[in-house]
Amino acid sequence: MSNNNVFLGDKYYSREHLDFLLFDVLKADTIIKYDYFSDHDKEALQMYIDATDQFAKEYLFPYVVEMDRKQPELVDGRIRVHQIHKNIMRVSGENGWISVSAAKEVGGLQMPSVFSTAASFILGAANYSGCVFVGLTMGAAHLIEVFADKKYHNLYLPKMFSGEWQGTMALTEPGAGSSLSDVVTTAEKLEDGSYKISGQKIFISCGDSDAVDNVVHLLLARVKGAPAGTKGISMFIVPRERINDNGVLVGNDVISAGVYHKMGYKGAPIAHLIFGENDNCRGALVGEENKGLSYMFQMMNEARISVGLHAASISSAAYYASLKYANERLQGRKTTEKNPELPQTAIINHADIKRLLLFQKTFVEGSLCLELQCSYYADMERVSDGNEKEKYNTLLELLTPVAKSYPAEMSNFSTSAAIQIFGGYGFTKDFIAEQYYRETRIHAIHEGTTAIHGLDLLGRKVAMNNGKAVQYLMQEIMQTVGYAKQYENTKENALVLEKKLEQLHSLTLHLMGVSQKEGIEAYLSDATLYLELFGILVLGWQWLKMTNTCNKSTTLDNEFKESKFLCCNYFFEYEIPKTEGLFTRLQSEKRVTVNVDAALID
Amino acid sequence: MSNNNVFLGDKYYSREHLDFLLFDVLKADTIIKYDYFSDHDKEALQMYIDATDQFAKEYLFPYVVEMDRKQPELVDGRIRVHQIHKNIMRVSGENGWISVSAAKEVGGLQMPSVFSTAASFILGAANYSGCVFVGLTMGAAHLIEVFADKKYHNLYLPKMFSGEWQGTMALTEPGAGSSLSDVVTTAEKLEDGSYKISGQKIFISCGDSDAVDNVVHLLLARVKGAPAGTKGISMFIVPRERINDNGVLVGNDVISAGVYHKMGYKGAPIAHLIFGENDNCRGALVGEENKGLSYMFQMMNEARISVGLHAASISSAAYYASLKYANERLQGRKTTEKNPELPQTAIINHADIKRLLLFQKTFVEGSLCLELQCSYYADMERVSDGNEKEKYNTLLELLTPVAKSYPAEMSNFSTSAAIQIFGGYGFTKDFIAEQYYRETRIHAIHEGTTAIHGLDLLGRKVAMNNGKAVQYLMQEIMQTVGYAKQYENTKENALVLEKKLEQLHSLTLHLMGVSQKEGIEAYLSDATLYLELFGILVLGWQWLKMTNTCNKSTTLDNEFKESKFLCCNYFFEYEIPKTEGLFTRLQSEKRVTVNVDAALID
Repeated sequence: MSNNNVFLGDKYYSREHLDFLLFDVLKADTIIKYDYFSDHDKEALQMYIDATDQFAKEYLFPYVVEMDRKQPELVDGRIRVHQIHKNIMRVSGENGWISVSAAKEVGGLQMPSVFSTAASFILGAANYSGCVFVGLTMGAAHLIEVFADKKYHNLYLPKMFSGEWQGTMALTEPGAGSSLSDVVTTAEKLEDGSYKISGQKIFISCGDSDAVDNVVHLLLARVKGAPAGTKGISMFIVPRERINDNGVLVGNDVISAGVYHKMGYKGAPIAHLIFGENDNCRGALVGEENKGLSYMFQMMNEARISVGLHAASISSAAYYASLKYANERLQGRKTTEKNPELPQTAIINHADIKRLLLFQKTFVEGSLCLELQCSYYADMERVSDGNEKEKYNTLLELLTPVAKSYPAEMSNFSTSAAIQIFGGYGFTKDFIAEQYYRETRIHAIHEGTTAIHGLDLLGRKVAMNNGKAVQYLMQEIMQTVGYAKQYENTKENALVLEKKLEQLHSLTLHLMGVSQKEGIEAYLSDATLYLELFGILVLGWQWLKMTNTCNKSTTLDNEFKESKFLCCNYFFEYEIPKTEGLFTRLQSEKRVTVNVDAALID
Repeated sequence: MSNNNVFLGDKYYSREHLDFLLFDVLKADTIIKYDYFSDHDKEALQMYIDATDQFAKEYLFPYVVEMDRKQPELVDGRIRVHQIHKNIMRVSGENGWISVSAAKEVGGLQMPSVFSTAASFILGAANYSGCVFVGLTMGAAHLIEVFADKKYHNLYLPKMFSGEWQGTMALTEPGAGSSLSDVVTTAEKLEDGSYKISGQKIFISCGDSDAVDNVVHLLLARVKGAPAGTKGISMFIVPRERINDNGVLVGNDVISAGVYHKMGYKGAPIAHLIFGENDNCRGALVGEENKGLSYMFQMMNEARISVGLHAASISSAAYYASLKYANERLQGRKTTEKNPELPQTAIINHADIKRLLLFQKTFVEGSLCLELQCSYYADMERVSDGNEKEKYNTLLELLTPVAKSYPAEMSNFSTSAAIQIFGGYGFTKDFIAEQYYRETRIHAIHEGTTAIHGLDLLGRKVAMNNGKAVQYLMQEIMQTVGYAKQYENTKENALVLEKKLEQLHSLTLHLMGVSQKEGIEAYLSDATLYLELFGILVLGWQWLKMTNTCNKSTTLDNEFKESKFLCCNYFFEYEIPKTEGLFTRLQSEKRVTVNVDAALID
């Protein structure tokens, strides 16, 4: 184990819990009854998870500390990364994992995405920086598969699926971060139908590295003369090296201008790229001009689920490290025991340590349940039609900002709780907790900051189709609540959640009123808090769903069930009450951040 | 400015706010009417703050990034630190700042501690790692001054006050962190009256460095044959080098075994020390045998105020950096503005950014007010007698865990909010926010973890003298509330706080009942949450007090007042409601973390 003698623990996720979610809670394997997924059987799905587990153990976890200590550097125009990345990409390619969710007609395996999401969780828990190369390539390939002309499939997909070429999404610019409508990179159509690209992109994950032979950017740019704002943005395939007429790779005038040095997540190279500085950068239009942003949202939505998933996966690793320590570390005695001559007790026996552990565990397991639920909706959307399809699409749209942001924000607290359990050691580099704390801080920022997702949820999703999305969600949750009400051991929590949902409904109506009376700015001023509130309730739903499954199951182990009931009770006792203050604030008529002179904040 | 081209901003604290607290809110200068402090006048106190400001600018702030990048290393048995530390210590010594609060009879200036606390805030905001050498030396010297035999005063204090010798507190051992009663370092009395010391101490801040000529440890050890537990702990002065009979410094068998590599706060060396490995380490008893812990608590209480203060000071620096950026960075448009052809707006104009800024500002300014209030109580305790003295002592005892832990915990969120304002840049090392986020994470750990302070507050302070401490506090707060009720612009917040205090009273009674019915473990199981709740209300009190001062004042600038009212309203609208969920949880009869099998947390 080349992890520099850092205390890591030996477990970073629970296979038992993952299987419980996949096969008991979601019954995700039943999806193979649909034609599209019918090549798979339950055994094959399990083998895929087994193989991922083994791969993570061998290629990812052993390098998690090393990647943090040796960050990528720009050397002679190329970004040098840890060389295990090359193996990770190639082995993933060889095993068909990069194309696992792609369609058969482009060489994929048509695996339900709920299983590739589960696999991605394992990889992220083992080593987040180590798994993003593959994830981004999958996402970029998916865009090419769905939106690009077929002639580009053969040109790009095989090399991406084999792990030889990297895929990226190239959106952000110095003047266009949260405000994508301000993208200024230009594209000028040439006689041969290709486009001449010119501009700068920043914060491009895996934007360049010596682990791959080429990088394929799915890039947003503005065709000359296009309308201002989001309506004038097009998408292009812009490779780092393009294939010339002789079938040979030649430079495409994409320059790596810099690599960011970051507080964490250091194993992944984040690049500053300059396109077309020598007037010789060519891109291929994806789909139609000016529709780029809508295409990109497909990849962004997948990427957003992935961000939430990996906030939870990093927190999972931090949780298991701190759990191991809590069981081993002797310190103090029970509060009822005053005799200092008795031996000290393991700190897991202290109530506050149990609280810190249950906080992490319920966050990690509940969030994973939510992310898998979202992927399951994506799969169901694919295989269903008409109203059914619209329902799943709508649910996914509504839940995406929540599934991205709730775990992203909470993972900061969860990994912080892990540090706290280690005490002074937690602040040192001899223990892994501090690294996880640094790594996960990116998640509330990339793929849209939390504020952006608050605006998305309250400003767009809640109101879309006259509130249809929320109606669908309430139906889903009430189904869970209805079942839970039938059992003594879940009834009370079910009633609490039911009441909270009613409050949420009233709150939303109240806010609509604010919108009419005071305008959009007041309406959206606390959208971030609305998102937080929404997230807590959605997690409560996950926990109720899990305990329902425990009540239904005749095969699950009793201790396993008991553990889930404990978690659910923790969540309803300690986390759900946090909604109270949020309700109070969101219902208040007092505007503090609207119509106030910014100069007073000094 | 040798700060490696990192974006820092040019301001790290508000002198205007500090002066407001000192001279308007606390009227701390009136304390010079008491004999003990009568050597000072208001002008001299202001000059001291001016000089500190200038010193911070020159000797601390320019090195804040450098200290993070070049951490201390153990080389040939000595810990090498940034060489500016030597200048910081010597200049502080020359200017009389290390002895500023000490008694005149030992060479001090008898400055009110509320002013040295204010000075310490400035230093910590400029560069936290840079100011701890001085702070620890002041604390250690204070212990010697108060508890050690006079013969040790001359031996140690002049060299410590001059900044040539470092002072430390050496408590923690591998088996005794939170559980101090398990200290096993031994002391054996020798014929000459000195003690032979043997043992290991870990996490000793400034425990060794090449910035000073000697290190004076105030060390806890157990005299052979002493009772087990806290009742058998004695305190010793153990220098790294002792003065031999010829007046020459010779080695005292104190070995630097290691220096910790940490996630932040890297400029300060944290040492692992071995005492008496060659049977040749000598210590001098402080006061009487077996009373060491009670002596140490004096220093720890001062140190705890200092921890809270510096959590706020780091957050202050992060706040001003993010404020500067928020005013400069253009991104997006107002939610009411759809036209993408209009120029982008500074992000401070977005409601969510204002929220993130007000969160930081109210936390920083409110916490500073609390820390100064505590120091003021300490000063008043010194100059008063009888009941009055007991009252100030009791208030200080009660508020210490709150003044330590509320800022320590909240500073993690506050510095995180600063990162969030910087967006993707906030995650990079090109901007200072990430460093502050890493630095401040230590504060919830050192000088007692948050859990320990929860136990201290609920298990000791709230109940002591039949609840006398809480009574005193309520009197103080109700005086503030009473005044605030008279003004339209503070009345509503006053009524909210009054109601919350009643709830807190009921809650405390409820918990006393739990203690009787279910025992001490159930009573203390959520002590950390009780502490959090208590902290929010105490901060609310600070804000109400500040707005009272604004209403009273005829000299303060109107815009300045308006800013304080905005802050107070923010705090009551966004922070006070967080108590609701805490009340709910703390009043619940359901035990989740007590009497539960730890094996279920897996």
